[in-house]
Amino acid sequence: MPGTSAPDFTSLDALVRPRSVALIGASDDPIRIGGRPVSYMKQRGFAGQLWPVNPNRPTVQGLPAFASISALPAAPDVGIVAVPASQAIAAVDELGKKGCRAVIMFSAGFAEMDAAGAAEQDRMTAVAKSHGIRLLGPNCLGVFNASINYFATFSASFEKGWPIPGRIGIASQSGAYGTHLFAASLDRNLGTAVCITTGNEAEVALGDVLGWMAQAPEVDVICAYAEGIRESAKFISALKLARANRKPVVMMKVGRSALGGHAAQSHTASIAGDDGVTQAVLDEFGVVRARTTEEMLDIAYAATRRIYPAGNRMGVLTVSGGAGVLISDAAETAGVAMPEMPADTQARLRTLVPFCAPRNPVDCTAQVTNQMDLIAPFGDAIAAEGGYSSILAFWSQTAAGSSMGPRLLVEMAAMRAKYPDRLWVMSMLAPNRVKDYEDAGFLVFEDPSRAVNAIAAMGRFGDAFAAPEAATVPLPQVTLPRTTPSEAVAKALLHQAGVPAVPEHAASDSEAAVAAAEAIGYPVVLKILSPDILHKSEIGGVLLDVADAAAVRQGYATLLERAKQHAPNARIEGVLVAKQIKGAVEMAFGVLRDPVFGPVAMVGLGGIFIEVLKDFCLRRCPFDAAEAERMIRSLKGFPLLDGARGRPKADVAALAQALSALSAFAVAAGPRLAGVDVNPVLVLPQGQGCYAADAVIEVG
Amino acid sequence: MPGTSAPDFTSLDALVRPRSVALIGASDDPIRIGGRPVSYMKQRGFAGQLWPVNPNRPTVQGLPAFASISALPAAPDVGIVAVPASQAIAAVDELGKKGCRAVIMFSAGFAEMDAAGAAEQDRMTAVAKSHGIRLLGPNCLGVFNASINYFATFSASFEKGWPIPGRIGIASQSGAYGTHLFAASLDRNLGTAVCITTGNEAEVALGDVLGWMAQAPEVDVICAYAEGIRESAKFISALKLARANRKPVVMMKVGRSALGGHAAQSHTASIAGDDGVTQAVLDEFGVVRARTTEEMLDIAYAATRRIYPAGNRMGVLTVSGGAGVLISDAAETAGVAMPEMPADTQARLRTLVPFCAPRNPVDCTAQVTNQMDLIAPFGDAIAAEGGYSSILAFWSQTAAGSSMGPRLLVEMAAMRAKYPDRLWVMSMLAPNRVKDYEDAGFLVFEDPSRAVNAIAAMGRFGDAFAAPEAATVPLPQVTLPRTTPSEAVAKALLHQAGVPAVPEHAASDSEAAVAAAEAIGYPVVLKILSPDILHKSEIGGVLLDVADAAAVRQGYATLLERAKQHAPNARIEGVLVAKQIKGAVEMAFGVLRDPVFGPVAMVGLGGIFIEVLKDFCLRRCPFDAAEAERMIRSLKGFPLLDGARGRPKADVAALAQALSALSAFAVAAGPRLAGVDVNPVLVLPQGQGCYAADAVIEVG
Repeated sequence: MPGTSAPDFTSLDALVRPRSVALIGASDDPIRIGGRPVSYMKQRGFAGQLWPVNPNRPTVQGLPAFASISALPAAPDVGIVAVPASQAIAAVDELGKKGCRAVIMFSAGFAEMDAAGAAEQDRMTAVAKSHGIRLLGPNCLGVFNASINYFATFSASFEKGWPIPGRIGIASQSGAYGTHLFAASLDRNLGTAVCITTGNEAEVALGDVLGWMAQAPEVDVICAYAEGIRESAKFISALKLARANRKPVVMMKVGRSALGGHAAQSHTASIAGDDGVTQAVLDEFGVVRARTTEEMLDIAYAATRRIYPAGNRMGVLTVSGGAGVLISDAAETAGVAMPEMPADTQARLRTLVPFCAPRNPVDCTAQVTNQMDLIAPFGDAIAAEGGYSSILAFWSQTAAGSSMGPRLLVEMAAMRAKYPDRLWVMSMLAPNRVKDYEDAGFLVFEDPSRAVNAIAAMGRFGDAFAAPEAATVPLPQVTLPRTTPSEAVAKALLHQAGVPAVPEHAASDSEAAVAAAEAIGYPVVLKILSPDILHKSEIGGVLLDVADAAAVRQGYATLLERAKQHAPNARIEGVLVAKQIKGAVEMAFGVLRDPVFGPVAMVGLGGIFIEVLKDFCLRRCPFDAAEAERMIRSLKGFPLLDGARGRPKADVAALAQALSALSAFAVAAGPRLAGVDVNPVLVLPQGQGCYAADAVIEVG
Repeated sequence: MPGTSAPDFTSLDALVRPRSVALIGASDDPIRIGGRPVSYMKQRGFAGQLWPVNPNRPTVQGLPAFASISALPAAPDVGIVAVPASQAIAAVDELGKKGCRAVIMFSAGFAEMDAAGAAEQDRMTAVAKSHGIRLLGPNCLGVFNASINYFATFSASFEKGWPIPGRIGIASQSGAYGTHLFAASLDRNLGTAVCITTGNEAEVALGDVLGWMAQAPEVDVICAYAEGIRESAKFISALKLARANRKPVVMMKVGRSALGGHAAQSHTASIAGDDGVTQAVLDEFGVVRARTTEEMLDIAYAATRRIYPAGNRMGVLTVSGGAGVLISDAAETAGVAMPEMPADTQARLRTLVPFCAPRNPVDCTAQVTNQMDLIAPFGDAIAAEGGYSSILAFWSQTAAGSSMGPRLLVEMAAMRAKYPDRLWVMSMLAPNRVKDYEDAGFLVFEDPSRAVNAIAAMGRFGDAFAAPEAATVPLPQVTLPRTTPSEAVAKALLHQAGVPAVPEHAASDSEAAVAAAEAIGYPVVLKILSPDILHKSEIGGVLLDVADAAAVRQGYATLLERAKQHAPNARIEGVLVAKQIKGAVEMAFGVLRDPVFGPVAMVGLGGIFIEVLKDFCLRRCPFDAAEAERMIRSLKGFPLLDGARGRPKADVAALAQALSALSAFAVAAGPRLAGVDVNPVLVLPQGQGCYAADAVIEVG
């Protein structure tokens, strides 16, 4: 829940960093599920106690076996359970009774199967909780912590090789994919310290694992794989903690497609949730979302340098003009700024190499490969005078050859040593020299576009780490009615909370409507007023341009007639008379209740923009006006508010204020608020405000 | 020019496949520009004659040297020129006099430098043309054709290794980038047969090179790199020929960003052109545009199998549910269809592996790795019963290990051998077995998302190869006025050409306007009529909802008053009275004249959609109504025409007919037509047609 104190993520220590391990269902066969952890920890030399439990054998893979959990010499820090599903709950209970407080459940056949399995899983969770046990799984592939040679997993991926030293943590809901990620990182020469797979997440969920990694000294960089986020409080605390501790989180969240959504459901019965909402949450905390495994590993690799430049600016040194253009294209796509070099520096570089193109990208031309003492002045110019925080050098195959390669390495290494605070990246086709450059502090990518994407991600981490804490948003007093209120009540509630309504009056008869219209001034808008008719325009329940008293009387009659015809059972309270506002930009905003993340606000341009063109922005509630303005400015259609096509600029500040107020209202209203729909919001020119012209508040 | 006969691309044979080569400016030093080609061809054993020209030495690198071009024993098939710029034109002239008809010009210092250089380049081109010489360059890195060990290039990239056998052709405007591509393909174990770099394109341009490759037996797959397309006729003929010969073209066209546009200019003074127009031309011919070098090589690699499925449908076999979701996401992004498996097949697979998810992706679960005789029935089910044209199998690191790897290879190879017409792709982490799978006919990718992108490209090639030839569009008779006509004339011209205009009459006085309005029926629209006022709404020159005779009289006066005020010097012809159409969807279409590709039509939803949201579609003129309808349906906002939000469906057929007619008009009008702007086009409900409500024809 928001507002409660931060969770203590160290409660996972026993699962990930135990001193004693009991394996229930231990097997003498080193390739069986119950045999692999024993085999792995024996091979690698796990430093703690390893206690196999097997009632049928005196030893397991050479280790003395225990006949039962109760026969163990002490309570193990963690119990690994690899028994048939039917015996799994009893094992948890016995471990609890022995005093064990952490269980890794390999056994499958629970919520991923059917309703009966889900019920059994709930029972297992209840037993675990009754003992205060942190339970990982069931149906999970387990955990490894290479820093202590702890392998509580039956993954077969170590056939490819053991983890190499490194500080990457992998947190994955999918065991197979988590393992794939580990194996792929191994092929990339990246060291994974810890890998935790969460399976069905009966008790320990992804948020716990991310939170543990966010505070664990073993991990600098967190790679996460998710199919659906099941709980929000710890997930969000974990992302906050990671940001506070300057640990980048790169996440693959699959199931973003309709197709993917299906597959995710059939895979682990997970709640795919609304991908847009998840994206909004990840954006909020500076999590970079990887679209592919390759991108995830590129970003993790780049992050191992631990240089995260806020306000990232990239300078490019290239021997190929073509590559320079390609890199510029990639930078624009990835949102990396490439400001120009200072004019006097450009002039000086032109005196060194007359045909160079020194703006940025700085194309020093192949001239430099023939005259290698020019590399240093070019590099110095970029680093010292360009002042770029990231520097990408494109050397293609030049770096590989015997004629230029060795000298290039010396020159480049000297340059980097002089400016060690920059993110130095080589794009080169020189597999033979990758290690040399990495040892000299460079990141090395073959493909320049991949290099640019990784640099972009480092900048996004830097911006997130540098961002101020979100301001606390004061919440209004809100008393929701018991059921969905009428439009008038809805707008009054919102108006009170800081979302201004269009001047209007409810009228319960024709003459009251005329009086209201006279008070407001013509022309007015008339709308049918009924708690039972939510979408008025669908029954013709809105009249525009009502210009005089006679038209008001006629309109009143028309609306009642239409209501009677289309919604004969609706309770009719009369007609709403409102000021007609012209020349405004029509926006829409609202609140949806996400089952995991709670109230989430949406803003977009009117109707078709949101529904047909999907041009909207989402954000967890509440947020302040500055954040609301960022949301509004992120819309593709924002130029419509900003004076496009000769219009006056709209009052974006007022709109942002109202949107922020709506977000605070949504939180203050509590969980009975099912949704809010304010459409249109009429935004007048700068200084003239904005008005909610219609509103629906759904109470659940 | 459209309509002329196809160019004969074999005229480049002497440049790429010569029997005798003269090198003007040959050097004894094998690492100088004039020395490298000699050194390379000697090392590799070029089969033809190699004649160094050097007035100062009797031999060059051990070969007898000739003192001058005139001293050569015969006219060489090709002359390579590597002399200072000041002597380059004379060398071309002498080669021409000797009878040589093909020149490769390494020398730089021409159009890429300044205006004087550009003038010299023009002079060189004129000299070449006077001899009928095909001239490659200047400022180019040359050519190689590995199939005959011909290396007319001074690229240093062979330090990395010589080309390996293969059937890829590289056509690049940038020498450095073309070489980078060659070196990168070498690192990927891909064989490049021919590489041609075009440099400044004084005479031979990219279109010539693509056309040569489209008909050359050396090349199956064409990789192209372009910064700007300089001529259209041969470029388009080349793309048509490649399509007809089922040779895929994958192109990197850089300079799509504002940043990139700058860099392209400073690089080779190339005309970056309108990236949107280029994209439309590439789409027209089924060229797949690569966003990164990696993607280009992935697609080229996949294309070497020469399986291009039209109507591509992908089946996925996976041991990881998570990877299945990821692949589904990637397929949706890439536009690859993944239809479900037949229901009865799914049921049967469930009897084999109860917990499998057999829909598609088919998750056979890790069970299959323990029970490998299940692989064959799963594979058979996908290939035979799923009927997929492309099959992606995700095996992660399973394929690498010693326990499962060998058997998996046997099973998979047997499966592929049974269905050799399918595109079989492995996604696996098994560098040790890549070659085995490739030898068995598989494509191998580590990253599943990259595999999906490559599969998507093969489907796009297949669709392009299977597409019928574009229908010939009959052109109307068009007589353009000498200068930009008034709106009335513009609409009459378009109406005649098949773009219907709203019923309307020009009125030169107030009473004529009333008579016109009475004839048309109220309400009407009034618009100022002047050949000097192109954008009427900007001066308030349009009045809507004019409801009766009195209002017409008043409106007439108002418009003349406004014209007088805002455009005092405009010639005023009166007022246009038009039927006011309500309830229509507002679209816009028009024609722009691209400097390279000629008239290009654009269609989009009204105003802000095109200008702010960039939701439009471009296509070279002319095209038929079927193509016009495809363009309209490709708009993001298309649902607005298709009944979104309870509207009636609009008359898309009529709109398509009008758009096609506009495209034919644009061609028939000839090169004096600078542009057409029809905005709005009012599209009524199905069967009721569409009308151009306003039109501008710009005559240049």
